[in-house]
Amino acid sequence: MTFTPTLQDCKLLDAQDPLRSLRDQFDLPAGVIYLDGNSLGVLPKTAPTRVAQAVAHEWGQDLIKSWNSAGWFTLPQRVGDKIARVIGALPGEVIAADSTSINLFKVLAAALNITQADHPHKTKIVSERSNFPTDLYIAEALCHERGYTLQLVEPDKIAAALQADVAVLMLTHVNYRTGAMHDMQALTAQAHAQGILTVWDLAHSAGAVPVDLNGSGADFAVGCGYKYLNGGPGAPAFVWVHPQHTNRLDLPFMQPLAGWWGHAAPFAFTPDYQPAKGITRYQCGTQPILSLTALDCGMDAFLSAEALGGMAALRQKSLALTGLFMQLVRTRLHGHGFGIATPAEEALRGSQVSLTRTEGAYAIVQALIARGVMGDFRAGDGGLHPDILRFGFTPLYIGYADVWQAAEHLRQVMHSGEWQDARFALQNAVT
Amino acid sequence: MTFTPTLQDCKLLDAQDPLRSLRDQFDLPAGVIYLDGNSLGVLPKTAPTRVAQAVAHEWGQDLIKSWNSAGWFTLPQRVGDKIARVIGALPGEVIAADSTSINLFKVLAAALNITQADHPHKTKIVSERSNFPTDLYIAEALCHERGYTLQLVEPDKIAAALQADVAVLMLTHVNYRTGAMHDMQALTAQAHAQGILTVWDLAHSAGAVPVDLNGSGADFAVGCGYKYLNGGPGAPAFVWVHPQHTNRLDLPFMQPLAGWWGHAAPFAFTPDYQPAKGITRYQCGTQPILSLTALDCGMDAFLSAEALGGMAALRQKSLALTGLFMQLVRTRLHGHGFGIATPAEEALRGSQVSLTRTEGAYAIVQALIARGVMGDFRAGDGGLHPDILRFGFTPLYIGYADVWQAAEHLRQVMHSGEWQDARFALQNAVT
Repeated sequence: MTFTPTLQDCKLLDAQDPLRSLRDQFDLPAGVIYLDGNSLGVLPKTAPTRVAQAVAHEWGQDLIKSWNSAGWFTLPQRVGDKIARVIGALPGEVIAADSTSINLFKVLAAALNITQADHPHKTKIVSERSNFPTDLYIAEALCHERGYTLQLVEPDKIAAALQADVAVLMLTHVNYRTGAMHDMQALTAQAHAQGILTVWDLAHSAGAVPVDLNGSGADFAVGCGYKYLNGGPGAPAFVWVHPQHTNRLDLPFMQPLAGWWGHAAPFAFTPDYQPAKGITRYQCGTQPILSLTALDCGMDAFLSAEALGGMAALRQKSLALTGLFMQLVRTRLHGHGFGIATPAEEALRGSQVSLTRTEGAYAIVQALIARGVMGDFRAGDGGLHPDILRFGFTPLYIGYADVWQAAEHLRQVMHSGEWQDARFALQNAVT
Repeated sequence: MTFTPTLQDCKLLDAQDPLRSLRDQFDLPAGVIYLDGNSLGVLPKTAPTRVAQAVAHEWGQDLIKSWNSAGWFTLPQRVGDKIARVIGALPGEVIAADSTSINLFKVLAAALNITQADHPHKTKIVSERSNFPTDLYIAEALCHERGYTLQLVEPDKIAAALQADVAVLMLTHVNYRTGAMHDMQALTAQAHAQGILTVWDLAHSAGAVPVDLNGSGADFAVGCGYKYLNGGPGAPAFVWVHPQHTNRLDLPFMQPLAGWWGHAAPFAFTPDYQPAKGITRYQCGTQPILSLTALDCGMDAFLSAEALGGMAALRQKSLALTGLFMQLVRTRLHGHGFGIATPAEEALRGSQVSLTRTEGAYAIVQALIARGVMGDFRAGDGGLHPDILRFGFTPLYIGYADVWQAAEHLRQVMHSGEWQDARFALQNAVT
């Protein structure tokens, strides 16, 4: 029989947590247990001052000089180098820029351009039906334009779908709905055996689970700056491309968003495009420096974490947090109709727990928010994919007692029936 | 004989300037005459507080709630509506998002998609050889991919190039090097007579000269948020599309950066892309809210200017400033070897003055910067396009005495020979 921790046990775990000090790097709103860091990360304490400095001094006083003096020119690379450290990439391999959707367009177009050159007979992109929709839309648009077919499958059918006619396997590493995690290395190896390139969306992985892009042999990756990386609302995203692809010289327009920031000599102002070497060619236009400055602050917390064991230590805590929540759902929330969509097996789990319930998921999330427990709701499709109550557990700033309290609030919401209050009813689809 | 104003005359003009109060809305660095607002606009006084509020309160305290409570969801539209007012567009026709290069890709791809459907025999994009390079690179990439030819011509050959085989005329309204302005209405009419769609880059027009997109019959436009709109470093850009094109339902992937923010129901999370109505389909991914907040502050200065005559009054002052500078170059700088690349005719002039000189242009700009007069340098090509000393005159915050003083500094730099000091020699191409 499994031992179920008490609140007291959880407080002890927090007191003994070697990562506990990392929480002090963030400003958390009072009275809130924030389990939505998988949607929008919290505020690093350094960000207000750093952004204010960028506004008042770098912009206001130094103006255009700051492109050099404040390092604005190289900020996408410098932030990219910090991101590289948490995703198994090397310095100079990552750029922080644009949005995830736009970066996905860049790398998916590049993957198709490479395939067109190397394997012109291939006709398909394979992805997961419950992939985050913007990924599917971007792929749909490119397929429409290039005459490829987008084949969407359930997770257990991916391996079987990797046939010789497939050009690209495009997956989100950790599923945004269920928190289920793919085996990047195994799927990449299976894909490569069929001459298939792999594109990974790390939106729910970067900063949440250890990622080893170079070790796994992946071809392309993109990810989000404003979730687990704590870069602020709409923070620039990132893009990584394996050096064997960035340095292909036979495809000057491999990356079709061929703006001046990806040019070999952007300030030569030549009329012809010559791609820069390496990942720089995946830049396009000028980046939002204020938002990028905030993302830089978010990344600094991960640098601090390195002395405490880095992503391996964060992963260990993350699994303990998600495991604890699932255990509390199974024990203290038994009989309240919840299913657990997130895999019990640790190797298959990201840093969130998704609950299912045949009715009331939206209202229950609202009732929790009213109590200061912030998770979110994702609607199902009435079929294979049920409504989801989504709880992100960010090991940088969530503790064991937070998890216990969140489960206890959920228990009270169900036990009291307060979730059935009319004020929590579904008002509209935007939550 | 033309009367040349003295410094005293210019101070009197400033004292009588009905737009003078607008300068108070900006924080200008002490001891600087800033003539580079065409590269990076200055800091609106409201921005530090507004951005700090967005960081500490909207992000730090309210977190994901701010998508609704702080209006983050609609910020691209709300800022777009403010931009619409200075470019002759209607509310709901403009989105502030992404970079100019990326927005150009969206509209140029859309123009080609429309052409492909309506006039499949057309094979060319026409542009100007000295167009801003990123525009040419984006066009080059699309031509490469779609089998179109990019035909680059000198400004006086544009009309002759508008033949039946041309799909798109892509121009920057005001040239970044010379400040020469095209006649948008006349060129659009000539283009339309041949079934050619027009794409206008307003990077050096929006907020600098009156633009009448709807009145001119243009098809597509993009522009920059961080130049004359004073949105801060790397501020999001904007995009406008004529409603006749946005509402074409036969081309669901007209705009190929088909991200979730351009979806008809982004939070329905459906696997299939359905474009939103109107300009919303030109959105792609999540926008950098902190940078967009700063741009919103920049646009508020233009709203204040409306009570003082708006863009028409700003244009009148802009022409007076650029005309004054050119007059001072012709009179007080006579014999120092400067040519004027900017058209003397007002209808052909943007809000900058570009000087040419066979040698020393870079060093002269550096010597001026050392004196606190900030313009910039753009290298020539050794042929048709000479080296340029570029001076932007932003009527929101530049006065007549500033112009006089800038010309006087330039006179002293030349007279003393200080520009020949070794410390002003060209160090590298990035200026």
